[in-house]
Order: sequence, then C-alpha cells, then structure tokens
Amino acid sequence: MGAEIGEFLSLDDFERHALAVLPTMPRDYYRSGAWAETTLAENRAAWDRLRIWYRVMRDVALRTSRAELMGRNAAMPLCVAPTALQRMAHPDGELATARAAAGAGVPMILSSLSSTSVEEVRAAATSVDPAARTWMQMYIGRDRGAVRALAQRAHAAGCDALVLTVDTPVWGIRERDIRNHFRVPDGMRIVHLERAGGPSGHEGRGIHEALAWTIDASLTWKDFEWLRDSSPLPVILKGICRAEDAARGVELGAQGILVSNHGGRQLDGAPATVDALPHCVDAVAGRVPVLVDGGVRRGTDVLRALALGAQAVCVGRPVLWGLAAGGEAGVARVLEILAHEFDVTLALAGCQCVSDVTSDLLRP
Amino acid sequence: MGAEIGEFLSLDDFERHALAVLPTMPRDYYRSGAWAETTLAENRAAWDRLRIWYRVMRDVALRTSRAELMGRNAAMPLCVAPTALQRMAHPDGELATARAAAGAGVPMILSSLSSTSVEEVRAAATSVDPAARTWMQMYIGRDRGAVRALAQRAHAAGCDALVLTVDTPVWGIRERDIRNHFRVPDGMRIVHLERAGGPSGHEGRGIHEALAWTIDASLTWKDFEWLRDSSPLPVILKGICRAEDAARGVELGAQGILVSNHGGRQLDGAPATVDALPHCVDAVAGRVPVLVDGGVRRGTDVLRALALGAQAVCVGRPVLWGLAAGGEAGVARVLEILAHEFDVTLALAGCQCVSDVTSDLLRP
Amino acid sequence: MGAEIGEFLSLDDFERHALAVLPTMPRDYYRSGAWAETTLAENRAAWDRLRIWYRVMRDVALRTSRAELMGRNAAMPLCVAPTALQRMAHPDGELATARAAAGAGVPMILSSLSSTSVEEVRAAATSVDPAARTWMQMYIGRDRGAVRALAQRAHAAGCDALVLTVDTPVWGIRERDIRNHFRVPDGMRIVHLERAGGPSGHEGRGIHEALAWTIDASLTWKDFEWLRDSSPLPVILKGICRAEDAARGVELGAQGILVSNHGGRQLDGAPATVDALPHCVDAVAGRVPVLVDGGVRRGTDVLRALALGAQAVCVGRPVLWGLAAGGEAGVARVLEILAHEFDVTLALAGCQCVSDVTSDLLRP
Amino acid sequence: MGAEIGEFLSLDDFERHALAVLPTMPRDYYRSGAWAETTLAENRAAWDRLRIWYRVMRDVALRTSRAELMGRNAAMPLCVAPTALQRMAHPDGELATARAAAGAGVPMILSSLSSTSVEEVRAAATSVDPAARTWMQMYIGRDRGAVRALAQRAHAAGCDALVLTVDTPVWGIRERDIRNHFRVPDGMRIVHLERAGGPSGHEGRGIHEALAWTIDASLTWKDFEWLRDSSPLPVILKGICRAEDAARGVELGAQGILVSNHGGRQLDGAPATVDALPHCVDAVAGRVPVLVDGGVRRGTDVLRALALGAQAVCVGRPVLWGLAAGGEAGVARVLEILAHEFDVTLALAGCQCVSDVTSDLLRP
Repeated sequence: MGAEIGEFLSLDDFERHALAVLPTMPRDYYRSGAWAETTLAENRAAWDRLRIWYRVMRDVALRTSRAELMGRNAAMPLCVAPTALQRMAHPDGELATARAAAGAGVPMILSSLSSTSVEEVRAAATSVDPAARTWMQMYIGRDRGAVRALAQRAHAAGCDALVLTVDTPVWGIRERDIRNHFRVPDGMRIVHLERAGGPSGHEGRGIHEALAWTIDASLTWKDFEWLRDSSPLPVILKGICRAEDAARGVELGAQGILVSNHGGRQLDGAPATVDALPHCVDAVAGRVPVLVDGGVRRGTDVLRALALGAQAVCVGRPVLWGLAAGGEAGVARVLEILAHEFDVTLALAGCQCVSDVTSDLLRP
Repeated sequence: MGAEIGEFLSLDDFERHALAVLPTMPRDYYRSGAWAETTLAENRAAWDRLRIWYRVMRDVALRTSRAELMGRNAAMPLCVAPTALQRMAHPDGELATARAAAGAGVPMILSSLSSTSVEEVRAAATSVDPAARTWMQMYIGRDRGAVRALAQRAHAAGCDALVLTVDTPVWGIRERDIRNHFRVPDGMRIVHLERAGGPSGHEGRGIHEALAWTIDASLTWKDFEWLRDSSPLPVILKGICRAEDAARGVELGAQGILVSNHGGRQLDGAPATVDALPHCVDAVAGRVPVLVDGGVRRGTDVLRALALGAQAVCVGRPVLWGLAAGGEAGVARVLEILAHEFDVTLALAGCQCVSDVTSDLLRP
Repeated sequence: MGAEIGEFLSLDDFERHALAVLPTMPRDYYRSGAWAETTLAENRAAWDRLRIWYRVMRDVALRTSRAELMGRNAAMPLCVAPTALQRMAHPDGELATARAAAGAGVPMILSSLSSTSVEEVRAAATSVDPAARTWMQMYIGRDRGAVRALAQRAHAAGCDALVLTVDTPVWGIRERDIRNHFRVPDGMRIVHLERAGGPSGHEGRGIHEALAWTIDASLTWKDFEWLRDSSPLPVILKGICRAEDAARGVELGAQGILVSNHGGRQLDGAPATVDALPHCVDAVAGRVPVLVDGGVRRGTDVLRALALGAQAVCVGRPVLWGLAAGGEAGVARVLEILAHEFDVTLALAGCQCVSDVTSDLLRP
Repeated sequence: MGAEIGEFLSLDDFERHALAVLPTMPRDYYRSGAWAETTLAENRAAWDRLRIWYRVMRDVALRTSRAELMGRNAAMPLCVAPTALQRMAHPDGELATARAAAGAGVPMILSSLSSTSVEEVRAAATSVDPAARTWMQMYIGRDRGAVRALAQRAHAAGCDALVLTVDTPVWGIRERDIRNHFRVPDGMRIVHLERAGGPSGHEGRGIHEALAWTIDASLTWKDFEWLRDSSPLPVILKGICRAEDAARGVELGAQGILVSNHGGRQLDGAPATVDALPHCVDAVAGRVPVLVDGGVRRGTDVLRALALGAQAVCVGRPVLWGLAAGGEAGVARVLEILAHEFDVTLALAGCQCVSDVTSDLLRP
C-alpha cells in the first residue's frame, strides 16, 4: 500500500484511495457531513469559484512559503486540523500525524477526541523536531474540572495554544454514522475524556450519542473567559462564521479566530468557510490572526485564503486520507504535495513570499 | 414494513421508501407537480440556497421549539398541510395523521377532499390530546350551501380555523394523473363533498375532471368575505404568492396568510414559496401570522422560514410518505424527525427559542 | 400512429414521438440549430427562468384567450411559425397545417420554402374557415422579380400579411444537415422558388448550399422599403433581436416585429428570443405589434411573452412534431394543447383576458 | 485517416478524432491543463456565455475577414498559437503547420520548444507564400546568451516578431504528464534549446522537470527590457491577465499584449482569458494590439474577441488536432473551418469587415 504513495499526485488521489480501502465505519465517520451534506460540498465548491489574477515578471527565484503562524514561524501557512480517533485510519494514528507535521514544519492541532495522549503526541513531534508545535483542541464539556485538567496537561506537555471549538453546543447529525451504529472501535479509547463509567460510555447510536457528555449546550462567552483564565496558553476560537462572533471573541481575549463550520459536520446549511472568511477578517481588523479550514485541497486554496486575509489554513480530512494510505509517510506526502503546490502557486502568482499575497490577486 | 420506520433518519428516507412501495396511481397523485414540474423542483431547491449564519456561545441548554401558532401554543412552529385522500396511502388515512399530529403537538389541516370525515378526525385527534387542534381546509365550490354547511360542520366538530385555498380557480394539470386515469379508488369517498350524482362524479380523466365541481372559477374577494361572515372561525388564506394579495386578504379580514403554490401542483412556473415569502411578510407587516409550505424537508428549513418572518411551516407530502411507511407510527416518526432536526438546528444556530430566530441569521 | 395522438399530453410528448419516428434527414433538418446549438437550447431555457407571480381571487369563470393579432381577432395570441418543406413530416404537409390552424382560429405563416403552393394552402385554410388567415413568409432573393411575383401571388391568394425574414443574409450552418447530405427529397419541390435550372438546384451539401440562391447577402433597409412598396400587404419583419433594428424597421414602415433568431438555426450564440423581447418592445413603444418565437412549448410561455409586451407567440417545431404524429389531427392536437394550457394559465394567473396579462406578473 | 478530414465539420470533430487516435503520452501532453483543469474548462465556457446581439439588413455581400494583425494584413484576425513538439502529433510537425498557416494567410507563432528549427519552418512557410509570417515564441531561460542567440536566429530566419511568454517562472503541474512519465520521444529533439548535457536533459518526471532549465524564475521587467534591446524585432508579451501588467508591458516597449493563461496549463484557478481581456484592453488603451488565446473553437469566438477589443485570437490545441488527423491537410482544414465560420459569423452579425465588430454586439 505504501508503495503507491509515491504515485499520488494530489490530495484527491489520496481521497480516492482512502475511500476505497478504509472500512465502512471509519470511512464514513471521516467523510460525513451533517444531514444532506450541502455545506460539506459547498465548502469545496466555494474555493473553486475564486479566480486568481496572477502577476507576471516578478522575481520569484528566491521565494519562500515560510509564514508567521500564531506568533512563530512555520514552513508554510498551514496547520493540521484536529480530527478525532486517527488510529481508525492507521495503527500509528496521531503519532504518525505528529511526526509528519513536525517534519513538514507545521503545527498540528490535536483533537481532544484523539486516540493517543497529548504527551505521547508531543514526544513523537519533538523527536522529529524539538521546536515542533502542537495545539490542543478542546471542548468545554459538562465536567469543568476535566476541562481545566486537560488544558493543564496540554500546557505541561508543551502545547503552545489551545483551540476551543465553539460550534458544538450539540453534535451535528451525520446520518452515515447512525446507519453504521458508529462506536469507538474495540481497543481504542478517547484517551483524554475517559469517564468513570468506562468504555460503555463510548458506545451508542452515532457519535452524537456516544459523545454527548463531552460537550455542553449551555456554553457562553463566560465559559470562554473561564478557560482563558484557566490556562496560560493563548486560545484560538474555532467554528466561527459571523463577523460579530469573531469580534466578540477578540474583544474577550481570543488570540486567534479559526473560521470553520466543522468540516460541514455540524449545521448543514452553514455558509462555506471561504465565504464567511472576509466578514470575519473585516471584523477582527488585524488584532489577532484569522485562520480558516474547510475544503482546502490545493495549494491554490492556501493562496486564496491568504488573499482574503487569513494567516493560514487548516487541513483535516486529507491528513486522514494520508494516514490511511501509509501512516506517517502518507501524511508526509500529503503535506509535501500541499507545500509544493503552494510554492508553485506563489511562483505562478508572482509572489516572493506570503506578504506578497494581497487581496488584489482575487479582486483586480 | 413498520419495522423499517425506526431506521429512517430523514424525510428523504421516507420519500424513497414510499415511492418504492405505493401503487402507481396514489404515488403519482401525491408526488406530481403541474406540467413540467419546474415549480415543484424549485420549491425544494430554493430552501437549499439560503445559508444559515449561525451564532456561537449562546446558552442553548434550555432551548425550546415551542411556538405560538395562530394564537395558541404548539410544540413547534409546524403544522400538517392538507393533502387529499390519505386512505390511498394507508388504510387508517386521516385518522392516523390526526393521531400522530396530536401526539406531536402540532395542528393538522384537514383537506376537504379527505377520505375521512372531520368528525372522525376530530375524535381521533382529541382521543390523543383533548387540546389537539384541527383546521379545516376549504374550497369554495359552486354549491355555496354545501360550503357553508361544511364550515359549520368543521366548527361543530371542534376545528379552530378554516384554511381557504385561493390558488385553485381551476385544477392544475398533472400529467401523471391523466396518464394513470386517476380516479378515487373503489371503496373510498371524498366524504365532505359528495354529490347527488354518486360515485360516478368522482371518476374521470385526472383529478381536474374528477373534481371540477368542487371549485369555482368565479371566486373573488367577495366570496372570501362571504365565508368570513359565514363562520365564527378565523380564516387563513392559502395559496398566495403576491404581496398585494397578501395585503388585500389581511385588509379584508384574513386571520392568517399561508404562502403556498399548492406544492407546485397548480401553476407550473410560479415562484418558489420561500422566494415569495419575504414579499408577503413585508406586505402583511405583522398584522396576522404568515405561514409557508412547499419543499420543507429539513429542520433547517423551518428555521429559514422563521428567519424570513414566517410564524410556521406546513408539511404535506412527507406526511403521506410517513403514512405509506407505517400509518400513525410513520407519521409520528416523520414529525419526530422534523422536531428533532429543528431542535438541533436551533441549538447549532445559537437560538434558545423561536423568537431568537431573526433575519440576520440569513443576511449577516 | 394516429391512435396515439389522443394520449399525448404535452408538446414534449409530440417531440419525443417525432424524434423516434421521423427518418433521419427530415428529423435532423427540423431539430437542428446552428453550430453547437447553444442558442437552440438557450431559447428554451430562458422561458423557464421566468417566474409567474400569479394573482388570486379574480373572477376568471368567463375568461377568454381571444386576442387581437395584427389588427384582427384570433382565438388565442399565437400563430404557426413558418417552417420549410412540411411534406417531409407528413404527406399532407402544409395542407394539414393550414386546416388545423384554421380550425384552431390562429394564423398560419406559410414558409416560402414550402412544399405546397400558397394557393393550395389558402384553399385548404378557407375550406375550414372562410376567415382563416395566412401570412406569407418571404426571403428577398437575388431575383427581385421573383420576389415581387411571389408577394403578388400571396396577395392574390388571400394572404393578409407578408413576413420578411431578415436574419438570413447567408444560411446558418447546421452540421447535422451537412452530415446527412440534406437535399429536397425526391418528389418534393420548393414550389415557390423553382429555378430554370430544375431540381438539380435543390441538391447539394446541406441546406445552405441547396438554397443559397434563395437569399441575398446584400440586403439593406432599402430592400425592405422596396418590398413594402411592392405589395399592398403589411410587412412583418422576422428575425430581429436588437432594439435599434426593431425601431428602424418600424420607422421605415414595418407593420409588425417578430423577435426571432430563426429557432437557433442562424447565428449560434445569439441571445434567447425571450431575453431580446423586452428590448424590442421598449424600442417599438407600442407603435406596431411585437411577436416572438423560439422555444415556446407551454401555455405558460404564451403568458410570459404577453407579460413582456408581446402581442403573440409563434410556434414552429411543435407543429412539425404534430404533423409527424398524425397530419392535420396531430397539428390540431398540438394547437389544442397550447390553447388549453394557455386557458388554464390565464385562470391560474388570475387573468380574464389577455389585456390582464401585465408586466407585474413577472416582476412583482 | 486523411480521408476523414473532409467530413470533419468543426474543431470539435477534430478534437474527438485526435483524442481517439493519438498515443497516450502526446495526447495527454497536448490536452492537459494544470492541476484540476478548472481554468482549462473555464477558458472554453466563458466564450459560450457571451451572447451576440447581431444586426440585420446590412449589406454583407462584399464582406471580408481580412484584418490588420501586428501592423500587417492577414487573411483573418487569427494566428496559430505556439505549441511544443508538434512532431509528436504528426511526422511533419511544425513544417506542416507552417505550410498550412501560410496557405491560410495567417501568422504562425513557432514555439521555442519546437521539434523543428526556425530556419526549416521559415523555409516551409515561404515556400507556400513568400510573405508568410512567423513569430518566434521565446522563454528567457537561465542561459541569457542562448536566448539572445535564438532571438538573432529568429530574426535572421525572417521572423517578424518575438512572442515572450511571461507566465512561466516555473512550469505548471500537469498531472497527466507526471503519470505518463512524459519525456521527449526518441528521435525528437527540442532543437532550439539543446544543452551540452545531451538528450538525458530532456528526460524526467513530467515536462516541468524535463524542461526546468529552459525557464528562469528570476525574470523581471528588466529582462524584458533586455530582450527588447537585444533584437530589432517587436516583442509581444504572452501570458498576461492583469490590467496593470498589460499597461506596464506597453510602457516598457511591448509591441503587443497576448492575453493568455497558457491554455490553462500554468496556474489552475486563473481567470478565463476572455474574462481578463476587457481589463487588458482598457489598460492598453489602443497603444498596441491586444491578442487573446484560450478556448477559441468557433468563428463566433473570433467575433466575440474582436467585440471585446482584441485585434485577433490565437488558436493552439485545434491545430494539433488537425496535425493528428492529417498533417498539413488537417491543419489547413482546421483553419479553413475557422475562416468559414468567421466569415459566416460576420455576415450573420451584420458586419462587412472587422472594423464593424464593435462592443455593442455583446452589450446592446
């Protein structure tokens, strides 16, 4: 299987392969969007509608993809989006992703629904690059003590940011998971969120039942303030589409805004993230970085996001497809393709570096 | 067959099943739109075009779907739209629908072309919930005495509103019915509209011939005034798409406006109801409730309708698909899915209750 | 074959049947558009994009489809568009069409490329209805004497208008005809345009070679003035899409403007006629009637045309499909379907007569 | 094979045939666009969206397609776009194209990646028509001496313009070529760009590796100025989409602007050339001619380009399909079809000559 990786030329190649080889339950868990999956499709389609009005005759020989990313430098303006239970895609799971991301020089956002602990993930990342960065994705569940404890674990393990998901007062309904009676596979655990009740807590009818206790519908901005005060780490808010919510978050101390609709997995009918991005960028007005995820599949999408004012993109499902194809090597190849495509895109658009990617590339 | 109901996750599941199991004549009667069925398709597509700009970090733990509906409280902002001859879908027909609607806490609009009498329907509804609400759909046919008598029957039977269909001066042409030589099935009767001529009056070439005598092309606003004065019940006007007609109706005493194009069964080429809705909402200007039907298939559509100013939606064909799948239990499951989807939609959009559903959710 | 006509419910039914039963050469000649047939498709699609904002509660019991059409009354605002060589569709050809149009109470425009003479056509029409109207379609070919003679023949035969096609300085390229080596079938003649050279003049590679001599690329407005002065009959200009050309024609004495792109058979890429119509209506400003053809397939299209300011529509290909299905009876059924659909459309849109069809039905 | 050419009626016919008969490697090299090929598709689709509001009753009997093209007269406003390695399509390669273009009276732009030398191409062209025009396409590669030498060779061979490609700081990624392990076929050479290293330099993984050394990512406007000063020939800049780049080029001495996105082979996501054209026309403001390539397949496209302000179009892939079908005869037929279609388009649009093609034909 790994032998094929070298012949995959695009993230679409990886997706086709993964959909063919993964067992039904994880495949559908990863691929699904909520309800009729219109937002899932729109996330992708909206990128393709943006035309890139490239420039010519700029010296791009010495170009670089390096970018500031949440206050530090990254190899490119991209990080790995959080996705749950990566061991369903490959036995090495999050460890493989951590090593590949570290090798590619980009941060990894670790899902709090991971199948590997943050400490192991950090060890894997820093074994490749001592400066590797990991951000811990968090839900604020009903047990606030457990939330605070996880934030502290993340800090202690060397994470340099928290990513608080705010689009999940309840779980979105993914019909494929219900049909498949989705459950956490035998021998796998959601290691950060174990309850006294044991593994039976993970079973049930779809992820929204299996994991209902990990979230809390009563969350308000006060809970964000509580988390902000509970950890020295900067907090990025993930799951915002409205300008007013982006502005509110920044005013209350968010250190970053990740424009996201949870990969189309929460509210079907939500706008494509790339359509929401400019509104949030305007509202944030440069006070903190704005990131975006959802449907990013090509290096050209990275440039589009930057031209709309994002500091970086996050990529989720393609990393899972990489894992499915070859563990660490698969993820590394996915990131390598994106890096190469973005490098070529920069060159072809006439940009030496990310600061050359300005809004006029999309609106001449 | 009933065993499958529990596995149906969406109204689309019910539709697929019903189209597979119903005999040709009722299936086509229920599914058809007029002529080329462009309005039928557009009714559905227009909902999908509306993006929901959800809010985050609102406390939605104690949310409720309860809504005022024509002056009283309902479990959610939804009622069952009138559809004819429900015994073609299941032997229990309108009785099953009445029990399921009462169980779900939503009004049922009984078609005057029903295969069960309003008295039996009311008895079924109140046997489940003494407070169950039934609204009587009416045509003003050529025999005004019969119309007045039916209005009085409805009132006596405990209906709390009349729903006057105003988009049917003549019957729309549904080609499938003509091809199928549609007729009222043996052993079934349009109980409220029987004529001296007997069952032969129900036969013919398509519903528009079978039922020509039940309507009257000469109707004007004076006839609405006559009906208004003929019954103590409030009258909702059903089938309006133009702002001026909505305003005229309200000025003449309509207690509600139901924006509808008869499920695409009358004038093919009419606008999608969701496109007509804002015009009517503006014209009515809050004087009476505005309802809407046509293509509602998801809880997200309910929220969209409310965000555009509707007080509630009506759902027609999916109820028939529920009947076909399992009688009362099928309809109950259809309504349960809608209720659950709407509840989740409220939560994911950051709304505690229907009054939080404001227009900025669609137009940020 | 004729037995099936009664079961055809729409013009689309006739089209499907005709495409299945006609021999390749006439089928392709009739169905073809120029080049890639984009205008052919767009002609149809553009009608479907127009939504009809119907009115309710107007007394439409005594409605009528009767309409003034070029100064006289017609049964509906419709006439038969000119199409060539109708005997390729049915042995009775233009005679069948003439009888059916007369029976339906609508004018027939006889193509100058007909396979039957205007005198025979007039005899057939007036045998059904002494008041039947026939308009003679004309090209101004290189032989001006022949043109004048044909205009005189048309007048003598009782035609009450000339329809001068102005979109054909050269023949459009219809690739199907070239592939089929289109020629006038044996035993058939273009009776009005015979040349000294005999039938060999009709052979060749596609209609544009076979008929090159019947047109003249040098035509200017002066030629129209010449024709106008050569005949006492009013002249309608057919094939106009630009406002300035419509205005120029009226200023020079045209008695009617027929907005047409020759059924998509001349310049592929030309605008859909319904998109051109409002521009021409504005330019003509009520001085003479404006007609439109191209893609009319439903009674709703007739109402749309009137709402945009047309006095009537012309229908071409569907008449050929009617001929193919059953000669006169087929054409009669095609016209009957259109009449019935238009009558139902009037009723459902809340119109008593064609003067009730105003622009607000499309733009509320 | 050649026998079929006479039956090909459109450039699409040639494409279908070529895709069926060419071996995989050249077929995919020619047909490919970059990455997901969205710009490749959009190039074509954008032409089709433009409607032609034709004029009627203009005398077009004596019309002509002749056009000024870069200061001299051409048979029509069209030239052959540069495409590499034409011997992959037919053994006669560029010689066949040169003879066909000369025969058709239009310039040929010779690719610097040709499989035949400019001297041989010139000889072939002038053998047909002593006044035949050839323009030499150039990349400025790392070896500036070789570039200057090629410019001088082109001048010496009788070329009358240089066409400098400016959209290729790096090669676009065409995935089909990578999959096919594209390499210059045995027995074929990129004659103008041979390196000391010999044929091994042409092998590798896709054209972007095989030919990396022929381009230079460090190019700036200064390099254009250098080329401009290195040759007495006028220089046309090819590959521009932005108004500012068009204006800059003209200010620095470009004698023509060719709006192009390299046939969708460089930056996937770039705008369709026809959408970029009006911006460049405005910016150039008549100072030098503007040309356009990309998706031109019909004579109507030529008229559209002129109506948007282009002086001419360039056609690339269809010439290769012509070569594949029959060498010189195939190319001649392709050009003949375009010439005939443009002639008919002029007539049907009411234009006597290219100066009659004004912007109101697209925007009435």
